[in-house]
Amino acid sequence: MNQEVKFLGIAHTSFKTVPEVPRCAKDCTEESTVTFYPEYSDCLVGLENFSHVFVFAWMHQSDRDLQLVRPHFGAAKKDIGVFATRSPARPNPIGMTLVKVNKIEGITLYVTGLDLLDGTPIIDIKKYDTTLDTPDM
Amino acid sequence: MNQEVKFLGIAHTSFKTVPEVPRCAKDCTEESTVTFYPEYSDCLVGLENFSHVFVFAWMHQSDRDLQLVRPHFGAAKKDIGVFATRSPARPNPIGMTLVKVNKIEGITLYVTGLDLLDGTPIIDIKKYDTTLDTPDM
Repeated sequence: MNQEVKFLGIAHTSFKTVPEVPRCAKDCTEESTVTFYPEYSDCLVGLENFSHVFVFAWMHQSDRDLQLVRPHFGAAKKDIGVFATRSPARPNPIGMTLVKVNKIEGITLYVTGLDLLDGTPIIDIKKYDTTLDTPDM
Repeated sequence: MNQEVKFLGIAHTSFKTVPEVPRCAKDCTEESTVTFYPEYSDCLVGLENFSHVFVFAWMHQSDRDLQLVRPHFGAAKKDIGVFATRSPARPNPIGMTLVKVNKIEGITLYVTGLDLLDGTPIIDIKKYDTTLDTPDM
């Protein structure tokens, strides 16, 4: 019933160990790159027209058996489910980060705000769409 | 190098065929449910505190070999890369939809706005976070 997720590219950041990765993505202000495998180059066509995209990563060093975590925000000192958090530990360690697109050169995407460990596999990119990605208030 | 994505639950919607699924998620105003497998029930703890969550699906009927698509928006009559779209056809057919949380009963999540084919496997849920999921303007 399960399926295979394909690794499409690799994140290159300055964060070489888990403690170095910013806890809040908005604190990540450096430029990083994603290098895609050449066979996926067509997926990038037209991406230069977007100021922001979501980067989806496979957080390969995360615990996949953890379902409850103690959040580092809020006053409540109790565990909550990983779906109610953005914890990297979850059954499918999919990370999602909204980043600023700086430029694209060939199969390399230059972005600002990528809060990933250096070497993390990338599994998807999606255009940011204000209409879809903001709740109706 | 690739990894296995686990199916955690199933979407139940009124859309029984692909043409029935709304092309724009914001046009999807009906209530739907996601039923999780009992072994993932702890992941849901605390989710009732959020008005909106992102639902991540594995769009199991989508073409995984398509890299260029003709968007149905805009005047340009040319193909663009799937990363620049929200097309279900992409190397990893991960769908992401922001939905309104109505209630949670046991292992069933009741939501409004789930634009998925009935029976689509669910692979993750993430809390919506205005700070993380809105670009700095």
